[in-house]
Amino acid sequence: MPQTKSEIPQLTGYTCTLCRQHYPYLEEMLTCPQCGETGILDIDYDYDLIGRSLNRDSLRRDQDRSMWRYKALLPLEDRDYSDFLRIGWTPLYRSLRLVDELGIKGLYLKDDGLNPTASLKDRASGVAVAKALELGYDTISCSSTGNAASSCAGNAARAGLKTVIFVPERAPQGKLAQMLIFGARVVSVLGDYRETFNLSKAAIAKYGWYNRNAGINPVMAEGKKTVSLEIAEQLDFQPTDWVAVSVGDGCTIGGVYLGFRDLYQLGMIDRIPRILGIQSTGCSPFVDAARDGAHLKPSPENTLADSISVGVPRNPVKALRAVSASGGAWIAVPDQAILEAMRDMGAKEGVFGEPAGVTSYAGVRQAVAQGVIQRHETVTCICSGSGLKDVANALKAAGNPIRSRPDLEELERTGLFA
Amino acid sequence: MPQTKSEIPQLTGYTCTLCRQHYPYLEEMLTCPQCGETGILDIDYDYDLIGRSLNRDSLRRDQDRSMWRYKALLPLEDRDYSDFLRIGWTPLYRSLRLVDELGIKGLYLKDDGLNPTASLKDRASGVAVAKALELGYDTISCSSTGNAASSCAGNAARAGLKTVIFVPERAPQGKLAQMLIFGARVVSVLGDYRETFNLSKAAIAKYGWYNRNAGINPVMAEGKKTVSLEIAEQLDFQPTDWVAVSVGDGCTIGGVYLGFRDLYQLGMIDRIPRILGIQSTGCSPFVDAARDGAHLKPSPENTLADSISVGVPRNPVKALRAVSASGGAWIAVPDQAILEAMRDMGAKEGVFGEPAGVTSYAGVRQAVAQGVIQRHETVTCICSGSGLKDVANALKAAGNPIRSRPDLEELERTGLFA
Repeated sequence: MPQTKSEIPQLTGYTCTLCRQHYPYLEEMLTCPQCGETGILDIDYDYDLIGRSLNRDSLRRDQDRSMWRYKALLPLEDRDYSDFLRIGWTPLYRSLRLVDELGIKGLYLKDDGLNPTASLKDRASGVAVAKALELGYDTISCSSTGNAASSCAGNAARAGLKTVIFVPERAPQGKLAQMLIFGARVVSVLGDYRETFNLSKAAIAKYGWYNRNAGINPVMAEGKKTVSLEIAEQLDFQPTDWVAVSVGDGCTIGGVYLGFRDLYQLGMIDRIPRILGIQSTGCSPFVDAARDGAHLKPSPENTLADSISVGVPRNPVKALRAVSASGGAWIAVPDQAILEAMRDMGAKEGVFGEPAGVTSYAGVRQAVAQGVIQRHETVTCICSGSGLKDVANALKAAGNPIRSRPDLEELERTGLFA
Repeated sequence: MPQTKSEIPQLTGYTCTLCRQHYPYLEEMLTCPQCGETGILDIDYDYDLIGRSLNRDSLRRDQDRSMWRYKALLPLEDRDYSDFLRIGWTPLYRSLRLVDELGIKGLYLKDDGLNPTASLKDRASGVAVAKALELGYDTISCSSTGNAASSCAGNAARAGLKTVIFVPERAPQGKLAQMLIFGARVVSVLGDYRETFNLSKAAIAKYGWYNRNAGINPVMAEGKKTVSLEIAEQLDFQPTDWVAVSVGDGCTIGGVYLGFRDLYQLGMIDRIPRILGIQSTGCSPFVDAARDGAHLKPSPENTLADSISVGVPRNPVKALRAVSASGGAWIAVPDQAILEAMRDMGAKEGVFGEPAGVTSYAGVRQAVAQGVIQRHETVTCICSGSGLKDVANALKAAGNPIRSRPDLEELERTGLFA
């Protein structure tokens, strides 16, 4: 297993999210040595140092329109990442119609499906690949419901790293096609996500590959936090009152919080938005725990939104903190509302998200209806992946075309133009 | 049918590509009144006027990272397009591995699959939607093998326009899902592309919708030319010796030439790259005509690359001119080479293109092997659409994953890690 000392002056160390023990910065500490695998680590930064090079002025001058414009806030050496795939700086669209349907003050859609492998997971994979290269690995591995895997494979292919990918057999065809085209060795596991994760863990331990599992490796949430850095900057550092994101493993929502926390620590925003965590009612361990005031219990994985169909989340601590520390809320929506959100975002805003991607908007609609989000408030919805990832469910949401022979009179009889 | 006079000072008029007749600028002239439907028009510009506002300095200062940074070179009124989907400014990747496999001096990959609806066609659809709004239409229509249609539907949905789409029944599921999710009225025509086109023509004529058909409407190629403007700017106005693009209807390659011609006219580049037009051997009317020194003849539509499966191209004049005026070449590659190119671009560069998207690279490889492209030359390959558009063919190219129960010993017996 490679081990080289690197110089990353902006890092001060790790803190265990369970026992609060602080550790000095050492390469490749994945989880807390005292707490074991559940001892997820936070990465600590020297904000005074970072603020000297990263601030509103420096960003205004920066020509780099990718997540690497924030590299001073990432746990990586200061290198040139211009040969990576172009991750991040995805569009933040002002809602033109749904905002009025909801009757709230403002709504923005962050289309992270426009990342190079068509999901937000590229942000984490970019950092993972950079870290693997920094440490001298030649192979990177992860288990995933699909997007983390295809993203890992694509970014690794670009960097010349080999990949070994573990996916549950239910992974949609689009994501599977991506991994295979990117040249990954792909294992389709005849089991659920928990079994897939455990198989990857055993293989990674035995073969010594770089571990991109987002539940364990603290650099993943650091990559994902760049979505929040962008949202804030794209809104001129006046973020919306709420930021809505769908939740599976818990790593993404954890990262969303970290981005805003960083900007708050740097004095670049004056409050952290409330974070709305949304799950499907078919798989809602976080929502259930919040409602019952209890610890997370394993949940069935019974939703068509494959990316958030995670019955045993691997990163619960950062997810729970994102909502509690931001004064946010948890909400669950039925799959039917997810399909409806897919149609609404597509037809009314021109954004086509995968089921987990549009779940954020389904949650916002329900939160407004329940008074959790107030009429005078503003919201950013993160669309975490492209609808092209999962065409089967899109067709389920969208219905069918009119079939016609090439004859205008026959076509008119269908009533399509009536 | 709406008809309003607009002020577009940079336009001087139209010229028919057949009879060379010049017409003053009038809204909605689609084809030459004298030559009829085959009298495709060029749009003429006042380059002296344009050069005063659009030049290297102005571009260096421009914060707009979308195709609208070039709006002074588009046939549109000078409006604010920030509420459109973010079209263009897609990444131009330096090849890290395929360049060495080819043994040429330089290779770049322009990943236009990262447009909002995942294809280059967004460039044309953005201009079409802008023009339809400018003229006061409420409905826009086109026939398409798939990408123009899904792109038209997405960009129109964002702008609040209705869409009527005609696709041949063979359109891949991904593209179909997009159109339907974007709320278009979609007609799946039980016929080939020619019959689909003719049905759309009849319906558009009868109902008076805005006509987005790229073969007829000269603004389409104008939108598509922005890909060349970007390639040139991303290479600091030193474009590669060759630019390679796959060819179906002929409109895209026509646009590719127009972009370089504009920059040459403006004095911003000192030569126009040679343009390599690539088709599949299963549908190669342009290549056949070039080889035989004859006019285009209808060709079978027998390739898995659906976007370029066009037996009767609707924009032959601009396509033929692109190659002849640039000193370029025509080449055809078998479908097997297209699938191979898909794997190579994915596994060696991290770019996942649809069959027509990677056809450009397949053509470059063959052109190098045949000595058409020389070892000392440099090439840009345009990847015109995302591989997620057509997952079925990607899986055909990629092979299958290893299936395993969640048991490391069982998995190791497959030999995957050997």
